[in-house]
Amino acid sequence: MASVQAEQESAVSGVIGLLKQRFGERLSTSGPIREQHGHTTTWHKNEPPDAVVYAQSTDEVAEVVRACAAAKVPVIAFGTGTSLEGQVNAPRGGICVDMSGMDRILAVHSEDLDCTIEAGVTRIRLNEHLRDMGLFFPIDPGADASLGGMAATRASGTNAVRYGTMRENILNLTAVMPNGEIVHTGRRAKKSSSGYDLTHLLVGSEGTLGIITELTLKLHGIPEAITSGVCPFETLEGACNAVITTIQSGIPVARIELMDEVHVRASNAYSKLTLKETPTLFLEFHGTPASAAEQAENFGAIAEEFGGGPFEWAERTEDRNKLWTARHNSYFACCAAAPGKQAFVTDVCVPISRLAECVMETKRDVDENRLFAPIVGHVGDGNFHTAVMVDLDDADELARAIALVDRMVKRALAMGGTCTGEHGVGQGKMKYLKTEHGNGLDVMRAIKRAIDPDSIMNPGKIFSM
Amino acid sequence: MASVQAEQESAVSGVIGLLKQRFGERLSTSGPIREQHGHTTTWHKNEPPDAVVYAQSTDEVAEVVRACAAAKVPVIAFGTGTSLEGQVNAPRGGICVDMSGMDRILAVHSEDLDCTIEAGVTRIRLNEHLRDMGLFFPIDPGADASLGGMAATRASGTNAVRYGTMRENILNLTAVMPNGEIVHTGRRAKKSSSGYDLTHLLVGSEGTLGIITELTLKLHGIPEAITSGVCPFETLEGACNAVITTIQSGIPVARIELMDEVHVRASNAYSKLTLKETPTLFLEFHGTPASAAEQAENFGAIAEEFGGGPFEWAERTEDRNKLWTARHNSYFACCAAAPGKQAFVTDVCVPISRLAECVMETKRDVDENRLFAPIVGHVGDGNFHTAVMVDLDDADELARAIALVDRMVKRALAMGGTCTGEHGVGQGKMKYLKTEHGNGLDVMRAIKRAIDPDSIMNPGKIFSM
Repeated sequence: MASVQAEQESAVSGVIGLLKQRFGERLSTSGPIREQHGHTTTWHKNEPPDAVVYAQSTDEVAEVVRACAAAKVPVIAFGTGTSLEGQVNAPRGGICVDMSGMDRILAVHSEDLDCTIEAGVTRIRLNEHLRDMGLFFPIDPGADASLGGMAATRASGTNAVRYGTMRENILNLTAVMPNGEIVHTGRRAKKSSSGYDLTHLLVGSEGTLGIITELTLKLHGIPEAITSGVCPFETLEGACNAVITTIQSGIPVARIELMDEVHVRASNAYSKLTLKETPTLFLEFHGTPASAAEQAENFGAIAEEFGGGPFEWAERTEDRNKLWTARHNSYFACCAAAPGKQAFVTDVCVPISRLAECVMETKRDVDENRLFAPIVGHVGDGNFHTAVMVDLDDADELARAIALVDRMVKRALAMGGTCTGEHGVGQGKMKYLKTEHGNGLDVMRAIKRAIDPDSIMNPGKIFSM
Repeated sequence: MASVQAEQESAVSGVIGLLKQRFGERLSTSGPIREQHGHTTTWHKNEPPDAVVYAQSTDEVAEVVRACAAAKVPVIAFGTGTSLEGQVNAPRGGICVDMSGMDRILAVHSEDLDCTIEAGVTRIRLNEHLRDMGLFFPIDPGADASLGGMAATRASGTNAVRYGTMRENILNLTAVMPNGEIVHTGRRAKKSSSGYDLTHLLVGSEGTLGIITELTLKLHGIPEAITSGVCPFETLEGACNAVITTIQSGIPVARIELMDEVHVRASNAYSKLTLKETPTLFLEFHGTPASAAEQAENFGAIAEEFGGGPFEWAERTEDRNKLWTARHNSYFACCAAAPGKQAFVTDVCVPISRLAECVMETKRDVDENRLFAPIVGHVGDGNFHTAVMVDLDDADELARAIALVDRMVKRALAMGGTCTGEHGVGQGKMKYLKTEHGNGLDVMRAIKRAIDPDSIMNPGKIFSM
C-alpha cells in the first residue's frame, strides 16, 4: 500500500515537473490556490488537487490530459467552483485544470439562434454579450457558473420549467477525452440521427468521461414582455397544489419558484425585502404583452383557489431584479440566518403529481427533528432543495441532518423521483445510484471503463471505479 | 472462412431450436415472413433474418437476447419496418424480434403529462388512446411507426419544429441489453442530474446497444386551437427564405413543411388535391384561438415579402386531415408518379441559415443530372428529403442517383449539417460518419464494444465492428 502511494506521488511529481516547464506561471502548487480549487459551496470536506493549471485553449487542455494519461494521474476540471456535491474535490490528488481563462465567445450565429463559446464563459457574461442582439441563454442555476461546469453537471434552475435544462439547450460540445483526443460531439444542425448521442453522454458526466472545452448553445429571443411577481399562500400545501394545477393547465410559466415561510424570513433579512412571511411563490411570465398578461391572470385564478394571493406585480425592472436576486441569494440568506453553521444543501426531484406530498413530508421531517432547514425549489419541475444548517461541532445535530437528507432522498426515490434534480451526484449522492438505476449503473460503469480505462478523469465522482 | 460460416450456421440453428421449444408458433422461419422482416421502405437490398420471434413482454425479449448472446448470434428488433436506411436488415442473419405484440399502453399519468407504453405501440394508436384525455404525443414521422422504432432511430417529423424530436420527448426507457439484462434508464421525474444519460444513449442507437421494450413519453395538452393551411410561392428560394425568416422571428409554428413543384404535382395526382403546382409550404399553428391567429397573420406577412401567397386556410378538420394525409403520403405519391421505379429516399439537415442555399443547390443538381427527385422537408428544422426515383435496370440512372445522394450528403456536411436529420444511419449512411464525427466515431465504437462486446445487437448498422 505504502509503495503504491509512493509510486503515485512520484507520478504526480513527474507530471507537475513536465507541466511546470510547459505552463510556467500558469501552473500553481500553492496551498491556498489548491485549497480554493477543492473548495465549493458544499459541506463536503476539502480535498485539494496537487496542482492547478490555468488553461487557455482546447489544445492546452489536451496537453495536460495527455501528460496525466501517460502517468495515470487524475485530472479534474474546475469552472467556478459553485457545484454543491463535491464535484471538484480531488480525493486522489492530481491536476486541476482551471477553465476560467477559456472565456472567449467564439461565434454568435443569431440567424440560427445558437452560439459557440469556450467552457469558462459564465452565464451572466454570455447574456450581457447577447443582450444587444435581442437574444438570451435561459439556463440559470442561480450562481454565475461557467457554462462548461453547467453542462458537466446537467444544471438547470429557475427557467427550466419553460426552457428545459442544459440537456435541452446544447447543440454540441468539444471535449478532451481521457486519452487526450479532442472530440466534437455534433454539428450545428438543429437535429440529427447520425450515430450515438455523445453530447448527451457528456452532459451530466461531471468530468468523469472528458473535459468539456467548448459548447454550442441554443439561444432564444428575449421575450417581448417579461412580468414577475410574488404570491403568498396560507399554507405550504396550498402553494404546492397551485403549482401542480398551473403546470397541469399548461400555462407556460417561465419561472415558478417556492420558498417556505422559514426561507422567506431568511430572505427578508438578507435581501432587505418586506415579503409576508408565509409560503410564497415567485413567478415570471414571458410572451407578448397580451399572452404574458393572460398567463398571469390564469395563474391568479388558480392561486386564489388554493388560498393564495394577492399576486403582487414587480412592474419595474429594478424591482424584478431585486426579487430574483433575493431568490438567487438563497444559499447566502440561509447561511446568514444561521451564523456559524454549515449549509447541507440537497436537492431531489419527483413527478409533479407527488410534489405536495414530498414537500409536506419533508417539512414535517425537518420540524420533528428540530432542524433549521429552509425549503426552496424549482417546483414547476417537481424539483426542490433544503439547506439544512448544521453546527459541525454538534455531533447530534450533524447526525440528525445527515439522516434527514438521507430520508429526503429515499422519499423522492420511493415516489418515482431522482436523488438529484440538478446538483449532480459528485461525492454526495453516489450511494443512491444503485437504488435509482439498478442494472443501469453497470452500464454506466462499462461506459466509464471503456472511455477512461485508467479512471484518471475526476475519479471518485458519480461512482468509485 | 467456410468453417467460420458453418460454425455460425450451426450456432443459429441451435438458437432457433431452443427458441422454437420456448415460443412454438410464435417463432417463424418461413421465407415470406423472414423477407418481410428484412424489407423496409428502402432501396437497400433485402437481407432477411434466419428466424422471427414474436415477443410479448420485456422478459420474453430478454430470453431471446440471452439465447442469442450465449451463442453469439445476431439479434435485430423490428417495429413496423418503416425505417429508410436498412435498419432492420440482417446482413449477418440471426434472430429478428418482432415487437408488434408488445402493444400495451401500460399507464397514462395525465397529472404528470406522461405515459408508459410497450415499444410496439404505434403513434396513431397512442394518440387515439390519449385523445379523450385531451392529450397528445406530438412526434409524427409520417408513417404509423412503432414508438420503440421511433426512439431507436431518433425519429422526428413534421411537428419537431415546435415540440422537438424523440430525443426531447422521452423521459425514460426500459431496454434489454446485449447480455440479456433489463435496464431502466431513468425515473418519471421531469429532470435529473443523476449519472450518465442512458436514455439519450439508447435513443438513436438503432438497436445496436440494446432493444427498447418500454418507453415513458412526455405528453402535451391538445391545443385549444389548431389551424392549418397551404401557401404557394413563386420560387423555391422564396419559400425557403420565408421559412428562415419565420423561424428567426420566433413564430412558434407547429409545422412548416416544404414541397417543391415536382412534389406538389405528384401529390395532386396521388391525393386528389388541386394545389397550384409551384413550391408550397404546408403550415400548422397551435395555441389559443387568439395566439394561433396572431401566428398565422405574422407568417402571412413574411410570406408576402418573399413572393408567397395567398395563404389558404383549411378551416374544417377534414380538409386539414386531407392536407396532412397528402403530406404523409409523400413516399407513395413519389412512387406513383414514377411507376416501376424504386425510391432512393435520403435526408439531410443543415443550420437553418444555410437551408435556401442547400435546397437550391440540390435542386440544380437534380435537374442537371436529369433525375426525377421530388424535394420535401421539415424545413423549419433545416431538414429536407429527396426521393430519387430510379429504374434499377438502368445502370446509368442508378449511378447518377447514387452520385446525387452522395453529393447531397457532402453538401450538407460542408455547410455544418448532418448526414441524416431523422432517418438514421442504418446501412445507408455508415460511410459518412467518419467525416461527420471524426474522433467521435472512435468514442462511439468504444461504447459499442463495451456494451456489446460480441457485436450481436443489430450488427452491420451505424458502423461495422
